[in-house]
Amino acid sequence: MRLEDLPIRDDLRGRTPYGAPQIDVPVRLNTNENPYGPSESLVADLAEAVRSQAGELNRYPDRDAVALREDLAAYLGHGLTHERVWAANGSNEVIQQILQAFGGPGRSALGFEPSYSMHPIITTGASTEWIAGSREDDFGIDPDKAIAAIEEHRPAVVFLTSPNNPTGTALDPEVIARIVEAAPGMVVVDEAYFEFAREGTPSALTLLPGNPRLIVTRTMSKAFAMAGTRLGYLAAHPAVIEALLLVRLPYHLSSLTQAAARVALAHRGELLGTVDTLRAERDATVGWLRAKGLEVADSDANFVLFGRFTDRRTVWRDMLDRGVLIREVGPPGWLRVSIGTTEEMAAFRAALEGTL
Amino acid sequence: MRLEDLPIRDDLRGRTPYGAPQIDVPVRLNTNENPYGPSESLVADLAEAVRSQAGELNRYPDRDAVALREDLAAYLGHGLTHERVWAANGSNEVIQQILQAFGGPGRSALGFEPSYSMHPIITTGASTEWIAGSREDDFGIDPDKAIAAIEEHRPAVVFLTSPNNPTGTALDPEVIARIVEAAPGMVVVDEAYFEFAREGTPSALTLLPGNPRLIVTRTMSKAFAMAGTRLGYLAAHPAVIEALLLVRLPYHLSSLTQAAARVALAHRGELLGTVDTLRAERDATVGWLRAKGLEVADSDANFVLFGRFTDRRTVWRDMLDRGVLIREVGPPGWLRVSIGTTEEMAAFRAALEGTL
Repeated sequence: MRLEDLPIRDDLRGRTPYGAPQIDVPVRLNTNENPYGPSESLVADLAEAVRSQAGELNRYPDRDAVALREDLAAYLGHGLTHERVWAANGSNEVIQQILQAFGGPGRSALGFEPSYSMHPIITTGASTEWIAGSREDDFGIDPDKAIAAIEEHRPAVVFLTSPNNPTGTALDPEVIARIVEAAPGMVVVDEAYFEFAREGTPSALTLLPGNPRLIVTRTMSKAFAMAGTRLGYLAAHPAVIEALLLVRLPYHLSSLTQAAARVALAHRGELLGTVDTLRAERDATVGWLRAKGLEVADSDANFVLFGRFTDRRTVWRDMLDRGVLIREVGPPGWLRVSIGTTEEMAAFRAALEGTL
Repeated sequence: MRLEDLPIRDDLRGRTPYGAPQIDVPVRLNTNENPYGPSESLVADLAEAVRSQAGELNRYPDRDAVALREDLAAYLGHGLTHERVWAANGSNEVIQQILQAFGGPGRSALGFEPSYSMHPIITTGASTEWIAGSREDDFGIDPDKAIAAIEEHRPAVVFLTSPNNPTGTALDPEVIARIVEAAPGMVVVDEAYFEFAREGTPSALTLLPGNPRLIVTRTMSKAFAMAGTRLGYLAAHPAVIEALLLVRLPYHLSSLTQAAARVALAHRGELLGTVDTLRAERDATVGWLRAKGLEVADSDANFVLFGRFTDRRTVWRDMLDRGVLIREVGPPGWLRVSIGTTEEMAAFRAALEGTL
């Protein structure tokens, strides 16, 4: 019995599992993690939170995670409350719930590629048709073309990623506002990397008032340095949260996840304190790569897309042989490097110089 | 803007969120939790596991949770290895992944009701048609009728729950074997309550060799007393695990969940040590209810279904007013009580005597 002999869904046939290689090398710059681990003080508070929760682990968690959603709302600001915030196991699960509520057979979702490759995977996993729109040469979105695509396909869900992964491109809120106005269904602005955006970049959260079909997703995996905790969340109109309650698996968010995320939010000064360092390292990396004569996308995120290489696979492999794991992702010819510590970026530069 | 004004999926319209009321009362006997919390020693080990993991929480978890799956396989026995075991955030997510891999538009899933009410909810949430088969008056499954239903509907997935929730009924492995043979697609035996079955009840795990379309699901929420950790798992042919890898959201299982579940498995002597006590309390509860002249379903689980009441809502409400929360679930006229501690069951009996 092999996989192809099983009665799997037809559209899964021939597919391979998603995921960057998890390889144990000295310098891992391939999944846009924050390279700075939590402090001793945060670790101690996490252990204490678990200790104080653990006596009740025989009981199911708060199914609606109200206290955590209050804390997330307080972090986001913009007058949000828990009624306008929802959380799940990573923004992947948040996005899946959105598609389960608003997508489905006979409906479609539109995104503008290159973008986060889980958007089409989750969309088709939720039996929703994926429509691949495209970005411009500078990886921005032309609002007129986007609106034309929306009018042509009438998608139930539109994905806008800002800053975009894997290009780093932030969208002008004017562009988002025009697309929200034109879209017949829901518009999801994926702001997983928002905290890394350059000073003064407005969040799509500013557009929530008066736009009940707008959803802004975030994660604690990136700037918050909590990838291992798996906590994604969103802000939207309270009616959207009600819709998500109809499709969420009950007790989807464990007591440990809820407790750990709340501790991390309480320590946000420390965790987000790494953002300025990472931004500076990013800008230095962009400058260094350009000085080497490479093409580099402007980045408002904690990674940089650079190229172009006639054989990017060989460059990626050669970097890996030198102990630096980056990501083979994005349009042909490009590679992506996550921003690590100062030492890791020095190792990246040395490895790339050796490779080129 | 209200929920009904949003462009939600048509089949969600008019629905209400699933879930038993989470009410803070002295005696909670409504969600089949194990009433015994972890020991001081287990709590200390959990906190220590989190402390030792937390320094790496900025990194994503092991996407495939191999070490945890090895531990789960070792617990299950039957010669299983991690290649034949899969885990997710509660058996709800395990079941959702099964439907995403093997169900979908144009396919159906068949269950025998009354049974676990999440099976149809997750099925329709995965855009799969739900076919409601039925159980006999004693809540068992007649294999001839089951096979006739399978031949009529040709379901992609068949659900068998043993011991069944909310009735407590264990299935004869002969019945399961006949249904597996007749089913054209996958057969899921939901054994969430297996550890509570009476001595000598064989697990459907014994049927796995030679049956690559059989999946046996389990949970750490019940006998393992880890409902707050949210860890469901399954055993199946390695090709089935490969299929699930195509639909699982990457990094679905947090580092904390993986670590906590491994600690609980290491303490399984303590955790499963409560099972005998709960079984004895269950059997005593069945006897007491029958002595009161009530109708009671035979139970191999940690709950008892009893009735019948012309107005069960009033009985449920009256019990709640007396500080005992039970569950209004199952066929009309029946109520379900989870087995609690000796003190909690005394409170249950006193409240029910007062109510009747």
